[in-house]
Amino acid sequence: MPLTDPDRLFPVEPSLRALARSLYDDVKNLPIVSPHGHCDPRWFAENERFPNPAELFVIPDHYVFRMLVSQGVPMTSLGVPRVDGGPVESDPRTIWRLFAERFHLFRGTPSALWLDHSFEHVFGIDEPLNAATADLYYDHIDACLGRDDFRPRALFERFGIEVLATTEGALDDLRWHRMIAESGWSGRVLTTYRPDAVVDPEFEGFAANVTRLGELTGEDTTTWDGYLDAHRARRDYFRSFGATATDHGHPSAQTANLSPQEAGALLGKVLSGDFTPAEAETFRGQMLTEMARMSLEDGMTMQIHPGSRRNHHAGVFARHGRDKGFDIPGPTDYVGALKPMLDAVGMEPELTIILFTLDETAYGRELAPLAGAYPALRLGPPWWFFDSYEGIKRFREATTETCGFYNTAGFNDDTRAFCSIPARHDVARRSDCAYLATLVGTGRLREDAAREVAADLTYGLAKQAYRLG
Amino acid sequence: MPLTDPDRLFPVEPSLRALARSLYDDVKNLPIVSPHGHCDPRWFAENERFPNPAELFVIPDHYVFRMLVSQGVPMTSLGVPRVDGGPVESDPRTIWRLFAERFHLFRGTPSALWLDHSFEHVFGIDEPLNAATADLYYDHIDACLGRDDFRPRALFERFGIEVLATTEGALDDLRWHRMIAESGWSGRVLTTYRPDAVVDPEFEGFAANVTRLGELTGEDTTTWDGYLDAHRARRDYFRSFGATATDHGHPSAQTANLSPQEAGALLGKVLSGDFTPAEAETFRGQMLTEMARMSLEDGMTMQIHPGSRRNHHAGVFARHGRDKGFDIPGPTDYVGALKPMLDAVGMEPELTIILFTLDETAYGRELAPLAGAYPALRLGPPWWFFDSYEGIKRFREATTETCGFYNTAGFNDDTRAFCSIPARHDVARRSDCAYLATLVGTGRLREDAAREVAADLTYGLAKQAYRLG
Amino acid sequence: MPLTDPDRLFPVEPSLRALARSLYDDVKNLPIVSPHGHCDPRWFAENERFPNPAELFVIPDHYVFRMLVSQGVPMTSLGVPRVDGGPVESDPRTIWRLFAERFHLFRGTPSALWLDHSFEHVFGIDEPLNAATADLYYDHIDACLGRDDFRPRALFERFGIEVLATTEGALDDLRWHRMIAESGWSGRVLTTYRPDAVVDPEFEGFAANVTRLGELTGEDTTTWDGYLDAHRARRDYFRSFGATATDHGHPSAQTANLSPQEAGALLGKVLSGDFTPAEAETFRGQMLTEMARMSLEDGMTMQIHPGSRRNHHAGVFARHGRDKGFDIPGPTDYVGALKPMLDAVGMEPELTIILFTLDETAYGRELAPLAGAYPALRLGPPWWFFDSYEGIKRFREATTETCGFYNTAGFNDDTRAFCSIPARHDVARRSDCAYLATLVGTGRLREDAAREVAADLTYGLAKQAYRLG
Repeated sequence: MPLTDPDRLFPVEPSLRALARSLYDDVKNLPIVSPHGHCDPRWFAENERFPNPAELFVIPDHYVFRMLVSQGVPMTSLGVPRVDGGPVESDPRTIWRLFAERFHLFRGTPSALWLDHSFEHVFGIDEPLNAATADLYYDHIDACLGRDDFRPRALFERFGIEVLATTEGALDDLRWHRMIAESGWSGRVLTTYRPDAVVDPEFEGFAANVTRLGELTGEDTTTWDGYLDAHRARRDYFRSFGATATDHGHPSAQTANLSPQEAGALLGKVLSGDFTPAEAETFRGQMLTEMARMSLEDGMTMQIHPGSRRNHHAGVFARHGRDKGFDIPGPTDYVGALKPMLDAVGMEPELTIILFTLDETAYGRELAPLAGAYPALRLGPPWWFFDSYEGIKRFREATTETCGFYNTAGFNDDTRAFCSIPARHDVARRSDCAYLATLVGTGRLREDAAREVAADLTYGLAKQAYRLG
Repeated sequence: MPLTDPDRLFPVEPSLRALARSLYDDVKNLPIVSPHGHCDPRWFAENERFPNPAELFVIPDHYVFRMLVSQGVPMTSLGVPRVDGGPVESDPRTIWRLFAERFHLFRGTPSALWLDHSFEHVFGIDEPLNAATADLYYDHIDACLGRDDFRPRALFERFGIEVLATTEGALDDLRWHRMIAESGWSGRVLTTYRPDAVVDPEFEGFAANVTRLGELTGEDTTTWDGYLDAHRARRDYFRSFGATATDHGHPSAQTANLSPQEAGALLGKVLSGDFTPAEAETFRGQMLTEMARMSLEDGMTMQIHPGSRRNHHAGVFARHGRDKGFDIPGPTDYVGALKPMLDAVGMEPELTIILFTLDETAYGRELAPLAGAYPALRLGPPWWFFDSYEGIKRFREATTETCGFYNTAGFNDDTRAFCSIPARHDVARRSDCAYLATLVGTGRLREDAAREVAADLTYGLAKQAYRLG
Repeated sequence: MPLTDPDRLFPVEPSLRALARSLYDDVKNLPIVSPHGHCDPRWFAENERFPNPAELFVIPDHYVFRMLVSQGVPMTSLGVPRVDGGPVESDPRTIWRLFAERFHLFRGTPSALWLDHSFEHVFGIDEPLNAATADLYYDHIDACLGRDDFRPRALFERFGIEVLATTEGALDDLRWHRMIAESGWSGRVLTTYRPDAVVDPEFEGFAANVTRLGELTGEDTTTWDGYLDAHRARRDYFRSFGATATDHGHPSAQTANLSPQEAGALLGKVLSGDFTPAEAETFRGQMLTEMARMSLEDGMTMQIHPGSRRNHHAGVFARHGRDKGFDIPGPTDYVGALKPMLDAVGMEPELTIILFTLDETAYGRELAPLAGAYPALRLGPPWWFFDSYEGIKRFREATTETCGFYNTAGFNDDTRAFCSIPARHDVARRSDCAYLATLVGTGRLREDAAREVAADLTYGLAKQAYRLG
């Protein structure tokens, strides 16, 4: 008996199920376009084997280990590295068993769906994971990982990935992307310009980062013009490695539109280290508007991922650092926050700004009305906790009636868990086909139109929004 | 093949579908009660033909043109008038083609449902609108519009409208309503008292508007008593043209309950032009409480439509003015905001205040608990972006369990698009019947009770809430 | 014809319905674990008959009388006592008739489901309640109440209640619990420590309450250590009557973590009566953190019920007091508010803090991400207005994907309406089984896992979270 139901995520009513399955059959084998995510480009540069099952599925994936932590498993027992380099569990089989014994905790979560999909479709396993099968799983996956057809490039090709974008900081030398480019491998792996560390005055080491930005570009980043030109230079550099987009992970969606004089003075202030939280917020906001203006110049698509209250527990952050499952969303304003930027560039049809949210209340109230009016705006797919069947359903139900399908930007997997990429795209395709089948079945969309939309949601809109043509 | 599915919006499961259809069959031909909307009374006064398809369906309807604008079509190319009177596209056929070529943008939206309903049921068309059929549509609709049976009064009668309320500002002379009344035509077209321009200190020309209010009524509107009496006089005047309701479109739901002395001092302040945003907010809030008190005197039902951040893009507002699709909702507080007014008049069983929202999070959290306690409160139907199948479903699911059906106020079409009136009421009737069928099918309502409720939601509750008996 | 459909709340699609029914058949007869509620312990201590149908179903139940009030019935006509002891309707049959004539107001509400369930399953009635059957109902129920098998203890046993927790204030002498304990009756009725009146500086009589707390415990409650020790003593006292939990009904979820010096100074301030609302908020917040620390010491589970704006109408509060249906939810922050407490104790696996909400927007945005990370946190079931079919559905859909089932705490009935206990638990069991069947039917959960989860949601998780083992 397979781990995954062939009709999973389709409506249960037989006529809807048949229709959803038929829509899905049209799109299930379309290439994967992954325009935003956090895979490590080194995998594809070096093409070394993945070390072991725990390193592949547990240790780097905060979706997975936070659930175990929430039920009392210490992070150190799961091998999550410590900031001080102190000891953590280092036996991957021990970690794997802790995970396997608690796999029931994931019941009803998208992680369970993704993991089962990987176990079955990547590794050919057909028994459920639990304490009894832990070692069988471990041995089987580990053996697979030792084979050439499980190396990163082989999996990339087997997954049918047409293009994969990673995300690098503004100061990154992009050496792995260079190595990929020079290797002659045909896989298309792009970078994305993520300048948070040189744009956010509250980022660790901000002033030093900006100094380094100046060194890398030969610009005087203590002046407003020099600072902006340094960004232009790095954007150019990233574009030379295929980047078609920038990404901005700010605590809020606040934007600003200061005069150059005001902005220059604020730059001096934030570089000095003597600034208020409100000034930091304004500076970040100003930089969103500046990035949008540069996107008008160089054609890069701009992504805004706001609203995560990161590193919520002080102790976990001190001991284990960023991205450890303790990033908690909060209410996020868009209608007021984006106004300065939208007044400046929102009506530009050549500009594409993709908005994401962790506050679902904004879908229908703010985001869809904004995207249904401003030519520069598109809505990104459900993000993080909401990249799931119910999350996608709520997103479509809350946005489609107001901004339609064509103001959305296709799917992002946004993952650092490589094997979950086909699983995540499959969930999105199935969930969208389920929604479209429901629209057809209730007389809200013609079937021929639904087929066009299914292909657009799977493939066309992402290529268009990210200019991957 | 018809444009619209005869079973549209009904549940797909066969037994629920049959039940929903049966409930709908009982109510589908009930007269249309349209107690709130923005049709132009001049149409019914003069009864001239509608000029052309673009003027009927595209140019005045911000639901339609904002979607085209969001995909890069300039507003001027769609014939939307400029504030400065400068040139805009004036060939209706050119505008119609722009619309027809992009009709796929509306897939999955209520606008598509309403338009298809109008095309099929008002104009007898059975082919989908697209680039290829654009001219066929244009010629056919234009020819129809030239016939006497497509003039406003003929359509009003054909649509089965029992009563239609329009909305006029406090300073309006109601000349078109007078002309309708004097014409001897049997159609019942009422006005509604909407005093925003003389109540909101931030409205363009507020002080001059208040002066004009004084002139119209012979009251000294620089004094608090005179200002209130001037409102009383205009409410009387509006009631002489059939008005049974007032309407208030404020940025928030804030109310206040100042002493007459404080209120008079604040009136002086806001008339002087030297006031803070907080003072403007308090003045508007005070006037909601005053309007509620006047409603207790004269029996008019009071509507509050809060929460739209209007004219979001400064440039669009400067070039094209109000109501151009750039009104974006934001979070709206009710629990704190309404307290001053509800402390004053909320327990009055003879008063009816109908609350609307653009912030769906308030349905279950604030609005249903308020309406399920205060005798003076009723909930208006889903408004604007949420006047849709999913919007109505969310409204019923989020409010019914807490305040039942009988604290809601039936349906409003709230439209300035005349041909969408039967389409919108049909969507509401179908959506409500789908919801009721689901309640019956899951044992939450008896079928005989569902039939009563369906009729009440379609007809009885609107007549009662707006005192149209 | 029965009042309640045997398949109520199950999905309508036949295969899902069969599966939901099968899951439900496994759990429907499991004992009732009621770890949080507001039944009067005196009922079980004295075991007197319930006085009459109006006293049983209408007068004490604000779910019921607020709906009648919202449609214009004066509270005094429903026998709701006045603060001043003035006259209110005293004939229970008159009150019952007012209720019966308006029973249609409850269509579509959980109150209707609960009442019909009680009428049918507790009292054996099979005709709908309305004006015509009002007297028949009254006479029949009243006759039943006179029988020994309708006394409180008999019903407790008939309902299959394994354990029932009531809620008492910190100053309560627990005389009824003592009387139950000394009676030799086998029913397990526990108390819960609810210290709001001695923790909230804005509670009526706060300073006097704290003085009384000192008298009861022999501690000097004007000092910080003495005040905390007094709480410890009362917690011990409550535990001697079986308490396993505390409960905290604060206006917000704000927590604080002051130094003992700062906390002591703040205690002095709030006891003096000369304090700001912000200081009261900080004091309440500090006490949540202190209560969490005491829970670490003594093992009591901690419940936080925040977000109700209580006594919304000043006049109703003045005339009738607390808990009269005029408690209205508002937006509630968790992500920022809980941080001080979670930084202090959130990673403790031995601590259990159960979070409730009246702001459903927090389910997916804040609560599930928090519970899916912090070992100390569990999510309580949908509360108050959201203890309903749709409320449970939204809760599961919004939380399961992020924190799974095992970070939730089973069901609470939270009621003061004794006869609604089996009805409420039945609704929860059916709603959860409907949700689980949908997961199985859409390939998101294996059937064998769903059976385990159904039992855990019904029984195991509540026993575990409240340490009722």
